[in-house]
Formats: sequence, structure tokens, C-alpha cells
Amino acid sequence: MHFNPSQNLNTIAKFLNAEYDGKPDFAITGINEIHRVEKGDITFVDHPKYYDKALKSKATTVIINKKVARPNGKALIYSDDPFRDFVKIIKKFRSFESSSKNISDSAVIGEGTIIQPGAFIGNNVKIGKNCLIHANVSIYDHSVIGDNVIIHSNTVIGSDAFYYKRRTDYLDKLESGGSAIIENNVEIGACCTIDRGVTHNTLIKSGTKMDNQIHIGHDTVIGKNCLFAAQVGISGCVTIEDDVILWGQVGVQKDLTIGKAAVVLGQSGIAKSLKGGVTYFGSPVQEAKQKMKEIALLKDLPKIIKKI
Amino acid sequence: MHFNPSQNLNTIAKFLNAEYDGKPDFAITGINEIHRVEKGDITFVDHPKYYDKALKSKATTVIINKKVARPNGKALIYSDDPFRDFVKIIKKFRSFESSSKNISDSAVIGEGTIIQPGAFIGNNVKIGKNCLIHANVSIYDHSVIGDNVIIHSNTVIGSDAFYYKRRTDYLDKLESGGSAIIENNVEIGACCTIDRGVTHNTLIKSGTKMDNQIHIGHDTVIGKNCLFAAQVGISGCVTIEDDVILWGQVGVQKDLTIGKAAVVLGQSGIAKSLKGGVTYFGSPVQEAKQKMKEIALLKDLPKIIKKI
Amino acid sequence: MHFNPSQNLNTIAKFLNAEYDGKPDFAITGINEIHRVEKGDITFVDHPKYYDKALKSKATTVIINKKVARPNGKALIYSDDPFRDFVKIIKKFRSFESSSKNISDSAVIGEGTIIQPGAFIGNNVKIGKNCLIHANVSIYDHSVIGDNVIIHSNTVIGSDAFYYKRRTDYLDKLESGGSAIIENNVEIGACCTIDRGVTHNTLIKSGTKMDNQIHIGHDTVIGKNCLFAAQVGISGCVTIEDDVILWGQVGVQKDLTIGKAAVVLGQSGIAKSLKGGVTYFGSPVQEAKQKMKEIALLKDLPKIIKKI
Repeated sequence: MHFNPSQNLNTIAKFLNAEYDGKPDFAITGINEIHRVEKGDITFVDHPKYYDKALKSKATTVIINKKVARPNGKALIYSDDPFRDFVKIIKKFRSFESSSKNISDSAVIGEGTIIQPGAFIGNNVKIGKNCLIHANVSIYDHSVIGDNVIIHSNTVIGSDAFYYKRRTDYLDKLESGGSAIIENNVEIGACCTIDRGVTHNTLIKSGTKMDNQIHIGHDTVIGKNCLFAAQVGISGCVTIEDDVILWGQVGVQKDLTIGKAAVVLGQSGIAKSLKGGVTYFGSPVQEAKQKMKEIALLKDLPKIIKKI
Repeated sequence: MHFNPSQNLNTIAKFLNAEYDGKPDFAITGINEIHRVEKGDITFVDHPKYYDKALKSKATTVIINKKVARPNGKALIYSDDPFRDFVKIIKKFRSFESSSKNISDSAVIGEGTIIQPGAFIGNNVKIGKNCLIHANVSIYDHSVIGDNVIIHSNTVIGSDAFYYKRRTDYLDKLESGGSAIIENNVEIGACCTIDRGVTHNTLIKSGTKMDNQIHIGHDTVIGKNCLFAAQVGISGCVTIEDDVILWGQVGVQKDLTIGKAAVVLGQSGIAKSLKGGVTYFGSPVQEAKQKMKEIALLKDLPKIIKKI
Repeated sequence: MHFNPSQNLNTIAKFLNAEYDGKPDFAITGINEIHRVEKGDITFVDHPKYYDKALKSKATTVIINKKVARPNGKALIYSDDPFRDFVKIIKKFRSFESSSKNISDSAVIGEGTIIQPGAFIGNNVKIGKNCLIHANVSIYDHSVIGDNVIIHSNTVIGSDAFYYKRRTDYLDKLESGGSAIIENNVEIGACCTIDRGVTHNTLIKSGTKMDNQIHIGHDTVIGKNCLFAAQVGISGCVTIEDDVILWGQVGVQKDLTIGKAAVVLGQSGIAKSLKGGVTYFGSPVQEAKQKMKEIALLKDLPKIIKKI
């Protein structure tokens, strides 16, 4: 999420009522959770295990709960609760605004686009040309949709990321400040859910086609011309390259990459990155050929044991 | 489901045109299906296999299709078709009422609560303070929602239980008379479905957070501060204790208990009760460590067999 | 999909600007994709692997990309791109029409049927008597619904088939011209999706009951009095016979048949046709007894190996 206008170290630290280390006018141009940081970003870290990762990341300002040496070219903000302060910034720059009608006045809708009855188009949503948004679709604020996109009924675009910090006696929500972006010529089936990014964007690239009841988590990036069958579920911060085919009910864990043109057979469960151009099967997933051998062996096992 | 006002043996038996055994003014204060009976309840039993369970249950009035000895302190109603008569009572005391507008006049909505466009709020629904009900959510009659609850778009709260009796040539529906109750600080993702209880309540306790496309069956009770990832499916009459984590696409069969702080990895299938504080994996589920050993063994098996 | 009025070889070929082999007035009464062809239909074939199947099918007119010998009693239309021309015909005879209100003027709704707020009923939809269509249901154009049908909130009936042809650099959509047909006494849970047929019909026969979040693909035929638990996913062109029970999260691949009264346990994955009257389990599915033995053997395997 970019700040508009850009902020600086002093204004942000003052807003948080926090001490800092760095030049007061050090630029903070955006805010991002550690998985998707860029130069100019402010991020946060609150666990010693991740201090190093955060301090060496592309983020140039880090909210941290320990007084550490400031890395070259970076700034630090000290906080007893970096998570709380990070959420505070998101809320300030992107607070939820309620809507009083089905299509917000601030929504921009391209020529030739059809919006069917009951569809909800939130604040600052942009929809391109010649799209078809079917009945009872819900598009949250700040979502961006390209040209020639078809979204089937009762699908939800841009709902909040599923991201909580476990406190002693409750689950603390990381507010979502990111967006969902759907590029040209994408088709999304009925009753799908595409969450927005926590701070960055969830992105569905051009030409990808999704069947019904598919879930795409926050900050996930889906390549071009992918094909996902019904009831596929993809967690947050996943990268799926172009031309990937996922068959029905496949599940994908967070923070991994599926390589170009990989094919994953139905009901497979993916917990590690997969290289492209290969067909996979199983939960946990293996190369399909290998898995098929395993299945055959298991069937023959009683005979093999008898023999031995 | 409680009767308001309270009923008695004579009025109910008369309504069913049925014989009974007990004092005419014996109190019947509510109606419940056998899994969730309380003192004062009327329940039903129509299969010899379950006579004993019903007669020894907490229910104090039993509709039964055999003339059995009346247990002490209880009443019996005789019926050639207890299921039919049970449904008849539910329909009398909680018949479906249609709605002519998006937010029923009988709905009570707390201060600070935002209802987004297209959301449907049925008859006698209660929603607490400072909730956020997103666009195109559907909340059925009699649902009760606490304070600070967030429900994302196109989620359905309080739809009918999936409960049928197989007759010779059709499936006979057990009408739902129960409710769905969502406590304070719960967040429910997009396109989720929380069925109401058949006669009792489906209950989501405070602080629990659910991702998108999650299904919760009738009369299920979910503890506090649980965390369910996307596409989890939980059957009816399940008890899930506090702090349980279910990862994506986990399936849970009916009538079982998952103990406090259990963690179940993605795509697992649970057919038996699980004790708390342990991590599980697989379909059917095992302790994750055990399952991982099994998976490793299966991979090594060709080598092991060759050796032997 | 039937043409009304009926067409002939000359009018269709002229519309496509294509050469043909057959009598100009040869009747073309409908259009169907190869899986569901009938006499009088026009279909298409564009891969040598399937030429024979198409030419020997019940379809009496075939759009084909090679000059082959015309079978007796049939007609051929020659095209450099049969897929493109097939889509062109569907679009001409069943183009999408937008709706300006929640219930189309061309929809026919039977006596005693209740339509709850926010439900969308498209053009030319027919709904029978005494149905209950809950809030925020979306019913696409041309869907047909019988009597005494209950459809729960946020379910989608008649959305487009998921069917694409992979071109060099994009996925080309087979436009849907078929319908979704729901017979009498069917109940469909919340957040389900029933796609319409590509050219034929998706059909749910009388008395079948579905739980929530179930997906039914295009051109699939579901028998009478079936019972599907939550989150079941069924692909396109599947035939499920009467009285079949599918438990939660079962996945069914395309183009297969499940026999009468088969029972499939939760999370099973079905990739081949199954005969009726048997209980199945596993992914890939086996007879449940066999699968249970396999699971038990796998648990005992470390001991067995030690012994040996």
C-alpha cells in the first residue's frame, strides 16, 4: 500500500508517539507486511527470530521492539508492540468506509460493462470496459478490475485477509490495507472469494479462468492463462506462475511458488514449492508418476508380504 | 427450542391427536432432537435401537412408536410416526415467515453496527453493537449475533439443518426450529454457511475467526478463539473446544468432539473425537508425527522390499 | 439446445460462410457438444483423434476441419476452426441479455412460491408452485425449477459451464447455451453452484437433497432422491443414478457414472465410474472395505517389516 501523499519518519513516529532512529525527513512512501516489502516501505517485526530478516529486507523503515543497530540507509521506529502500531498506521490511511448504495459514487465503470442486479460495487472500485458482473457479486472498496472480465454470481472480490496475531486471550486482527487486482480477460466462477492483500495486492493476471467456489488468499499472485477447477483453495502469499492447471479441490499452503505450466491433479495438497512443467498428485503432493507407483505398490503389498 | 408460553402434555398430545401416559399438566417447556435434549424437553424416538437412549435422556417427554413402561418423572406420547409428529410440533411453533424487505421490522440492530447494501436480515434477528455486516450477507430468522462481529460478503447465517429421514420413496425433512448464535468478537469470512440448529442452537463462541467458504453444520458448538482456515467443513452436532486450529479444507464428521487447542493440518479428515493439545494430519486423521512416519515409510518401501 | 424455429444445413452454413456436403434443406433441429448429442443436432470436431467418434455419433450434422467422406444420412460443414464456428452458432441463438431488475418480466413464477429479498431471477426462468427461494439466490436466464423446491441463500443456479479450448496464447471460452433444470421436491443448500449445460441441460432429478457449498458441473445429471453432504464437488458430464449418497467434500471427475444407491464416504476422490450398491472410500476411491484393510496394513507395516 502506497501513501498518498508520501510520509516521512517524523510524521509517522509522531503519529505513533514513538522514538525513532534516522533522519526526521527520511521518506516513507508505503507500508507493507514483510512478505511483500519494497524500497520506501515501513514494515514491522516483533519476534527476535525475524529481526534479521526484517532489517535486511527491502523495507527502509522498520518498527521493532528492540533497540538494535540501525542498518545503513534505513530508519528504525521503536515500539513496545510493533503489530499494534503497524495496524494503527493501516487504519489511519485506509479506514473502512460504509456504503449507502449498491454502486458507490466513487466507483469508475468502463464503457460496455454490464452490472447485473444485486451486485455491490464499493468505494473507489475501478472496473474496465466490456465486463460482465453477474447478480449478487460483491466487490469491496479499492478493487481494480480490467477489461473483458466476467465475474459470476455471488462471488466476492477484495474481502479482508485472514491474518491474526495470537494474544494471551484473543486473536488480534491485522487490518487489511491492500487491494485485489483482476487483469483483462479473466473469468471467475460463482461463489468464489478473492481476498485483498494485507498491505500489498492480490493479483490475478490476464487470461486466467477459474471455476466455481475457489478461494484465493491475500497477497497471492496468479499468473496468466491459468486454469483452476472448482473448489480449489489457495492460501496467502502464494505465487503461481503462468499456464498452471489446478484440478478440483486442490489445496495450496501459504508462502510457496508453483512453477510455470505445472499440472496438479484433483484433491492434491501442496505444502512445498513445485517446479513447473510437471504433473503432480497426492496429499502431500508428489510427482504423479511416483504417486501412482506408490498406490499400486500399496495394493500389491498383501501379496508381496505373503511371498516373503 | 423453548416454547413461549410453556406447553403441557395434554395440549401437545391433543394437537397431535395422540394418546399419552403421564399427568395432563406435565410441563413441556421446549423441544429438542435427541443430541441436544434438556430437562423439560419433548423429543422423539422411532427405532428400537434408540429407545433406551431416548427414555434415559434428559428429555422428560418422549414421542415413541411402542407402548413401553413410562420412566419415573417422565411422560410418553404414543405415535405411529414419531418423526412426522415431531416435525408437526416444530412447524406449529416456528413456521417460516416470508420477508418483504431486506431488513425485517422485527430485527433489532445495535448501535454503531453497519449493514452494507444487499445484506438480508430476517425476522426476529438480533445483532449487537459495532458489528460490520458486509454486502449480500443473508441472515435467516431468529439468528442472534453479538457485539463487534464482522461477517463478510455473501455469507449465510442460520440456513436450515441438513437432516432427512429416508422414507420408502422420498427423503423426509426434519424442519429446523433452532437458531444460529454468534458471540462477540467473532469474524466470519466470505461465502461461509452456518446452519441453524434443528431444535437447539448452533453456537460460535466469542473471539473465533473463520476464513472464507467454511461450512458449519446444525447444532455444532465452536469454542472460543478458534481459528479455521478456508474451506473447512464441519458436520452437525460437533463440539469443538477453545483455541482449536483447523487448517484449510479439513473435514469433520458429525457427533464428535475436538479437544482444546488441538491443531489439525490441511485436508485432514476427522471421523473420531480427538483429544486436545495435539497436532493431527491425514484422512483418516492420525497424530501428525505418526502420519509423517507412515508417509516416509511408504516412500522407502520399494528399497526395503528389494533389500528383503 | 433446440433451435426454435428449426434450422437447416443451408442457413447454418451460410451464417458461418462455410462450404458443406449434404442437402441444403437437411434439418438441423438443435446444437450439442459431443457428450450429449441427439439426432438432428449439429456438433463439432477439430481433432483427428475424435473424428471417428463425432462422425459415428447421434449428431446428424458435424462441423469438421477435414474433407472426409460423408456418412450416410448425415451432413458435414467444413471449417478451418470448428470450435470458433460452434461458439458462433451458440452466441447467435442464445446471446446473453442483461437484466434491469431483480425479477425479470419474462420469468414465470408459480402459485404459492415465495421469493425472498435480494434473490435474482433472470430472463425466461420458470419456477413451479410452492417453492421457497431464499435471500440473495441468483438464478440465471433459462433455468427451469419444478414444484416444492427449496433453494437456500446465496446459491447460484445456471451459471456458465467451465469449458475452454487452449489456444496458443489464450483460453478460448465455449459459450454456454444449455440450461439448469431442477425437478420437484429438490432442496439445495446455501452457497451451492449448479452450472448450466454447455449446450444440453444440467439436471437435478426429483427429491434429491443437497447440503451447503456443493458444486455441480455443466451437463451433469443427478438422479432421484440422492443425498449430498456439504462441499461435494461434481465435474461436468457426470451421471449419478438414483439414491446415491455422497458424504462431505467428495470430489467427482468428469464424464463418469456412479451407479444406483452407491455410498461414497467423506473426502473420497472419484476418477472412474463406480457400480451401484457399494460403499467406497479413498482418494483415489476403492471399495471401503478394501481401503480400510490398506489403512490397517499401513499401520502395522513397521511391525511386519521388523518381523521379517
